Amino acid sequence: MLKERKMPQKPEDVELKERLAAARRRLAGQQMQIKERKLPVLALMEGWGTAGKGSIIGQVIRNIDPRFFQVISLEVASQEDLRKPFLSRYFTKIPEAGKFVFLDSGWMEEITMLRLQKGLEGKAYEEKLESIRRFERQLTDNGYLVVKFFFQIGEKEQRKRIESLQKDIDTRWRVSDSDLWQNKHYEKCLEVYAHYLEMTNSPSAPWYIVDAKTRKWAELQVLETLTEGIDIALQNHAPATPLLQNVFPLAKMPKLSEIALDARISEREYKEELDRLQEHLGELHNRLYRKQVPVVIAYEGWDAAGKGGNIKRITEALDPRGYQVHPIASPQPYEKARHYLWRFWSRLPKTGHIAIFDRSWYGRVMVERLEGFCSENDWKRAYNEINEFEKELADWGAVVIKFWVQIDKDTQLQRFELRQNTPEKRWKITDEDWRNREKWDAYEVAVNEMIQKTSTAYAPWHILESVDKRYARIKALRIVIEEIEKAVM
Amino acid sequence: MLKERKMPQKPEDVELKERLAAARRRLAGQQMQIKERKLPVLALMEGWGTAGKGSIIGQVIRNIDPRFFQVISLEVASQEDLRKPFLSRYFTKIPEAGKFVFLDSGWMEEITMLRLQKGLEGKAYEEKLESIRRFERQLTDNGYLVVKFFFQIGEKEQRKRIESLQKDIDTRWRVSDSDLWQNKHYEKCLEVYAHYLEMTNSPSAPWYIVDAKTRKWAELQVLETLTEGIDIALQNHAPATPLLQNVFPLAKMPKLSEIALDARISEREYKEELDRLQEHLGELHNRLYRKQVPVVIAYEGWDAAGKGGNIKRITEALDPRGYQVHPIASPQPYEKARHYLWRFWSRLPKTGHIAIFDRSWYGRVMVERLEGFCSENDWKRAYNEINEFEKELADWGAVVIKFWVQIDKDTQLQRFELRQNTPEKRWKITDEDWRNREKWDAYEVAVNEMIQKTSTAYAPWHILESVDKRYARIKALRIVIEEIEKAVM
Repeated sequence: MLKERKMPQKPEDVELKERLAAARRRLAGQQMQIKERKLPVLALMEGWGTAGKGSIIGQVIRNIDPRFFQVISLEVASQEDLRKPFLSRYFTKIPEAGKFVFLDSGWMEEITMLRLQKGLEGKAYEEKLESIRRFERQLTDNGYLVVKFFFQIGEKEQRKRIESLQKDIDTRWRVSDSDLWQNKHYEKCLEVYAHYLEMTNSPSAPWYIVDAKTRKWAELQVLETLTEGIDIALQNHAPATPLLQNVFPLAKMPKLSEIALDARISEREYKEELDRLQEHLGELHNRLYRKQVPVVIAYEGWDAAGKGGNIKRITEALDPRGYQVHPIASPQPYEKARHYLWRFWSRLPKTGHIAIFDRSWYGRVMVERLEGFCSENDWKRAYNEINEFEKELADWGAVVIKFWVQIDKDTQLQRFELRQNTPEKRWKITDEDWRNREKWDAYEVAVNEMIQKTSTAYAPWHILESVDKRYARIKALRIVIEEIEKAVM
Repeated sequence: MLKERKMPQKPEDVELKERLAAARRRLAGQQMQIKERKLPVLALMEGWGTAGKGSIIGQVIRNIDPRFFQVISLEVASQEDLRKPFLSRYFTKIPEAGKFVFLDSGWMEEITMLRLQKGLEGKAYEEKLESIRRFERQLTDNGYLVVKFFFQIGEKEQRKRIESLQKDIDTRWRVSDSDLWQNKHYEKCLEVYAHYLEMTNSPSAPWYIVDAKTRKWAELQVLETLTEGIDIALQNHAPATPLLQNVFPLAKMPKLSEIALDARISEREYKEELDRLQEHLGELHNRLYRKQVPVVIAYEGWDAAGKGGNIKRITEALDPRGYQVHPIASPQPYEKARHYLWRFWSRLPKTGHIAIFDRSWYGRVMVERLEGFCSENDWKRAYNEINEFEKELADWGAVVIKFWVQIDKDTQLQRFELRQNTPEKRWKITDEDWRNREKWDAYEVAVNEMIQKTSTAYAPWHILESVDKRYARIKALRIVIEEIEKAVM
């Protein structure tokens, strides 16, 4: 689409000026609607070095109040970035509802450069393209407006601009090694860019090629495309989007009602096993660090099922410098204003580290579903979105472990009453716990559906029978050890 | 205090065991009080490499619910860290109210290593010590419990531990180059550590030397000291702390009522000057980037004084990849739970970048003072805390520019009415604006006091007379240019 494409015709100067003024006014007028309608707008600027992405962004934002936008310029990935999954540095930077983010190059630049300079190709390249398509779809499906621009200039024009920048000591730093490399290998780059643009040109997040030969003309193309996109997005009122058929291999899982809860362990066996397994896990933690394998553990389960104590038996075995427990409560305003997976993308461990989530992204298909915090289309779509999220983690090399901590309704009642009647435990029980208990049956339906639909081969659910909490703790330790061993042995 | 100090006597095994059990219970019992009383606890673990800081942290946190603590292990400063002021990587990691942060080494390690290996000494070293004392005092004065441990082991013991770790492939990575260097230069390190400990041993954040020869004994010392410190902090109910006398050079500033507001500029002169100054500022931005000078600009002023439009005339001149505007509204829960300067420390620019704050840390001595969001002692202390904060910025090499945008009461009324009567401007006016207007006189008292007390030589206030907004914009551009030129020429 880059090579054969006929560039739009640049209008005459008078018309250009008039249309520019109109487009600027239109964008200025749209910003309050965007705020009121809580529309998040992500404008991605990709293209040739020196094509003027930065300076066009500078023009466009003149029409927007600084409270409503952020410009993010992605530099070379830091050491920290390189220890996170590929999409992490992009997902964490998405705008919040009602605001713009302008990204001065992003995932296209990263992937095409890997292809051009580091030999990314074949299946590995295809997988990255698929990750990107999923990422963009997850944004647009969740109400984001994603507008993608590619700034096009010719080989000679680029060379001319590079030379002009190099002449002045104050602008010389603007010419990067990558710009020079691009110009030297223009044809090869063109090939790779053209292929990338085709492979990621989706109906909900299409590409716009900008003729960047002159500045005002480029600004006009960006402004008209952007304002058009915004108007269309504003016309839509949280449209439902198609539910995709599952493409991931699923494990067969039991229903909660089919799970026997009579497993017990003796006090003596518990102590012996606990010591042995914790020591073993402690050793594995060292190896994990040395091999730089990340681990993500998610705990879900009934209130009072024993999640906290279970997590504690895992963490006791670990070096505190190498893990973090993330208790997940209801989101704060800045979290609620973004894609529901944003706060989990922002809490992923570095390679070699362990992140334990006490409640997790599965809130989308449990509490958010049952309390109506999201639409039916939202939570129905979430099973696939979550499978995709965990696929990213698995592809990154993470060990992903998900525990459902299971008890029966009577056991929960006993534990609630115990908490209520023991002063130092009373803080653990709230009115909300009692209210949730009343919805046990509805939750059971949701949990069953969740376990059926998200037990993928790469991130299956593990059931922890926790009427005997000690039994559940030993089982969890064994599973964690087993899964980590698979990855580091 | 490290060298002459008599180590506490290690108790017999039976007593050790009993005291350990008691201390663990005590800490477990304290966590809910800490939560309820919203006490933030920062435990800093410093000391010799291989002294067991990490493993003692691992023991201590066993007694605390994972929702209430975080362990932060500070690694070598990243490129990003090195482009922020020295204290930034520590200030941004302080705990929130009701929670613990355990820091596995921090500013002591950084400063003593700079002294030992990079020749930090004399006045530069003294300044760092003063920064650290201010930092710790700002925390304790604002209700933080800061407990500092130094883990002490002898030269031979350290050598033995290093050799033992090196034997096993899974633990070899735990021995850092810095550990090896320390052991080789033990006496020299001892000297430097001892001096540091003495110079930073303050009554509100004193040092505790831990005899780290055996693990359980070290754990006991930490637990007993920590729990004792917590009990004392819990007994105190937000105690007022002494107001320090100003030590910074202050500029003489007018009262608001003395400021003439009749300055005007013609439409023609405005346009000419705007073009000229913006072009000049754009060029300076390049130079700023090349010289890696950071710029921090804070805007304060009456509602409708024209802050937004003024900021816009600055940003129009800048490369959007090199600046960020931070609109400051009332803090979100996670922000309110921390020291009031935390959200500004977290928003500082990198070197070579510009951060513009639309409202700022001065909220402490204006809205927080007038609305009673903090105590009288809090806001009275804040003048000095803010001067110290800006001193850190100035010492880091930042250009710090503070604008008060001034109008009179009648002008505000006219602009409020214009906003109210113009549909596309109505979002800019809220009931709160009208309420604030009623408190004009009280605000004027607060603003006068603020300007008198925080116009330091290194970060003076600049008044922008903004009855004629165009005049104020030109004046702001000139000041920004002048201040930046001083730094980059």
